[in-house]
Amino acid sequence: MRPMDAEQLRECGHRMVDFIADYYKSIETFPVLSQVQPGYLKELLPDSAPNRPDTLDALFDDIREKIVPGVTHWQSPNYFAYYPSNSSTAGFLGEMLSAAFNIVGFSWITSPAATELEVIVLDWFAKMLKLPSQFLSSALGGGVIQGTASEAVLVVLLAARDRTLKKQGKKSLEKLVVYTSDQTHSALQKACQIAGIFPENFRVVKADCSNNYAVAPEAVSEAISVDLSSGLIPFFICATVGTTSSSAVDPLHKLGKIAQAHDMWFHIDAAYAGSACICPEYRHHLDGVEEADSFNMNAHKWFLTNFDCSLLWVKDRSHLIEALSTNPEFLKNKASQANSVVDFKDWQIPLGRRFRSLKLWMVLRLYGVENLQSYIRKHIQLAKHFEQLVLSDSRFEVVTPRNFSLVCFRLVPPTSEEDDGRKLNYGLMDTANSSGKIFISHTVLSGKFVLRFAVGAPLTEEQHVDAAWKLLQDEATKLLRSV
Amino acid sequence: MRPMDAEQLRECGHRMVDFIADYYKSIETFPVLSQVQPGYLKELLPDSAPNRPDTLDALFDDIREKIVPGVTHWQSPNYFAYYPSNSSTAGFLGEMLSAAFNIVGFSWITSPAATELEVIVLDWFAKMLKLPSQFLSSALGGGVIQGTASEAVLVVLLAARDRTLKKQGKKSLEKLVVYTSDQTHSALQKACQIAGIFPENFRVVKADCSNNYAVAPEAVSEAISVDLSSGLIPFFICATVGTTSSSAVDPLHKLGKIAQAHDMWFHIDAAYAGSACICPEYRHHLDGVEEADSFNMNAHKWFLTNFDCSLLWVKDRSHLIEALSTNPEFLKNKASQANSVVDFKDWQIPLGRRFRSLKLWMVLRLYGVENLQSYIRKHIQLAKHFEQLVLSDSRFEVVTPRNFSLVCFRLVPPTSEEDDGRKLNYGLMDTANSSGKIFISHTVLSGKFVLRFAVGAPLTEEQHVDAAWKLLQDEATKLLRSV
Repeated sequence: MRPMDAEQLRECGHRMVDFIADYYKSIETFPVLSQVQPGYLKELLPDSAPNRPDTLDALFDDIREKIVPGVTHWQSPNYFAYYPSNSSTAGFLGEMLSAAFNIVGFSWITSPAATELEVIVLDWFAKMLKLPSQFLSSALGGGVIQGTASEAVLVVLLAARDRTLKKQGKKSLEKLVVYTSDQTHSALQKACQIAGIFPENFRVVKADCSNNYAVAPEAVSEAISVDLSSGLIPFFICATVGTTSSSAVDPLHKLGKIAQAHDMWFHIDAAYAGSACICPEYRHHLDGVEEADSFNMNAHKWFLTNFDCSLLWVKDRSHLIEALSTNPEFLKNKASQANSVVDFKDWQIPLGRRFRSLKLWMVLRLYGVENLQSYIRKHIQLAKHFEQLVLSDSRFEVVTPRNFSLVCFRLVPPTSEEDDGRKLNYGLMDTANSSGKIFISHTVLSGKFVLRFAVGAPLTEEQHVDAAWKLLQDEATKLLRSV
Repeated sequence: MRPMDAEQLRECGHRMVDFIADYYKSIETFPVLSQVQPGYLKELLPDSAPNRPDTLDALFDDIREKIVPGVTHWQSPNYFAYYPSNSSTAGFLGEMLSAAFNIVGFSWITSPAATELEVIVLDWFAKMLKLPSQFLSSALGGGVIQGTASEAVLVVLLAARDRTLKKQGKKSLEKLVVYTSDQTHSALQKACQIAGIFPENFRVVKADCSNNYAVAPEAVSEAISVDLSSGLIPFFICATVGTTSSSAVDPLHKLGKIAQAHDMWFHIDAAYAGSACICPEYRHHLDGVEEADSFNMNAHKWFLTNFDCSLLWVKDRSHLIEALSTNPEFLKNKASQANSVVDFKDWQIPLGRRFRSLKLWMVLRLYGVENLQSYIRKHIQLAKHFEQLVLSDSRFEVVTPRNFSLVCFRLVPPTSEEDDGRKLNYGLMDTANSSGKIFISHTVLSGKFVLRFAVGAPLTEEQHVDAAWKLLQDEATKLLRSV
């Protein structure tokens, strides 16, 4: 066994490249949503690891016959579910190189290039988004790559928690209150569970169609007043730019002012829609970010950077470091002790970290900002096109105005239906997804079961949107006939 | 721009494979520890992202000239620092395929193969380690891939915290006490900070040379008694098999019995040394694991699986799920609602997750258990060889008995030295690392500054160990002459 022989790596690597290129060439031949049944793989694989090595040929056969059928093809041009998770040649090359170096970049010294490239590329990105200069590494803030938006919101919640407890005493934990909307991603609720925020102090303000599912700042203000008068300690507001259900945009400026008035931490989650804000015509959705303590967007969603790559900026890095740093003897080194470098281990939950800035750097270098803007615009154009198609068929309705590349729509239920179209629309989604031809997902808005059509897979063209719409129309005709 | 064109991916992918194979071919020509100065990269890269695309040629030039000098080469055969982070052809191929599918496997439905392969491969691995059957997915337990050991200990700490608070009431948080040794990895302390455990309730029991830096169970027992009599609530014991400083092994069986007697959670961190326990002759280090609630080892350290791949098993998955699950409408689906599948989002901190089981599966398939055992044995043999070399030179001493592939040693300080050899040994490490020829790290044991020589890079052979030893001897001669 020569596990890291350069020539073996070369030979096997070339074979894998061809396998992958062939996969992308034939990606439309697979059902988008995997159609396997729970437990399918257990029937196909042995009960224990092999004692002797298998050949690469045998492995490729198994991947083709056993693994691929169980894959839901997020990169298919007919994938319209959740939000996208973009792959690209540049992102893929970055993953390859990062896997090849296979460094563990907890401290600067463990690979200075990993830390320094991350600092530089996050500064580049902050400038592309026109974030206030306090978020740059040259000021008191800075950017860092987290794995996911869930980890991003957790680390800033911890920074905010510890900042407040430092003033109020650690026994005040039970009084700390978090404010957000019922449209905020469940990651915040999970972060609160982890951080020990008392569940009854997780304040969820209802958003409704009157504001297109943006939260009403007055309602947040009111909740804070009530809590203050009960002796509680409001300490954290989370706003969203592009909510998961309907891509709603919370009023950043007003929420930021409220946070400021009460010395609270203000976090903005723009996991999905942040990418759009590199285009001047969408940048206004970030107006108010100057009030934020932290801002997050996922380059792995809609920015051609392979998963995972979640970008987090903070205005004052010291709070993050205070909440998350440890300094064991076995990691001490000259550069860290001299305080002359960034050690990203103190900006995140885990100690170890991959060289993730490589892929983001490669995406920016190999595509350039102008092309990336065009890429975003093209998807928004395709979503507009889908929206028009929905509007042109009176059996359907668009449920909320479209902000970016997501269309929320549904089949209008016949008056005879008692469940406000839940069964009907669930049925439409289920038959469409079971066909293997497209994959869409759903949400519930004000009790209404709503279908989500999110454009954003890298291979999606107008023909795919048209075909998806035709499928939905045809299935709708069949379903309505049987109602 | 065709960011996901199959033929472009093929062409660029082949070029990257050759780049990487050439890197491995020449890896010994680079300084193992990067010799750049803080801030070096800022001087070399522009201030903002390019508007127009660059060529792949330009990118490769930059990687060669600007990135590689800032890389510390963890895969170099002359890397002996910290613990290893193994790369292999199989692991690399797994990373490539995972990046190509680029799925986000939070729930079963988002790619059933990702979840099911993970369940199967973790069961395989549990059997290789001869873990008790309760840790298998067919029982109430099961395995899951975490990013790092830090995340593994955090999720089980949260599961334990919430299990205890459920009985004791959530206001008891301030009374919860964690027990561990001063040799335990700093990840536990950080997990406690995150989970809101009061700092004064983090009980660190001193381990010393009398037990080769394993913790004394009597001392843990005593600390628990004292705390109980003060009305505190002991709830968590963490033991280590192969500590970070000196690869000490805590007495699992006795600690497990103590935990059981007090209804505490018992976690075992075998991040590094767990790999060795697939060899029958080292399995005894895990005796007592049958008392544990959770067990963790890093396949990304010494098991040829590229970073990150940390394996965690629990005896009762319901505690994990209770602490970490969320169930937003937008993620609901038939399979999850029917409770017929595992959704790993509820076993970890983040929502999103990569298809990491692929690389571990490929390592097991392409190498086979017997070869993997030989691989481990070879490194331990090389460490034994280094230990003999140290013992043969009376100017040096071996500080603790070697358990696995780590040798803790130092230059014996001349009696004239007042700092017990700190400066001398720091100097030896610093000159050796500055030479670029090897990279070793250090720790402090009972106040002694100790050098760590960890064998485990995939390309290391006896000639590299011999050359490292010769370098250390030569530098020692120079240093001792100048004392």
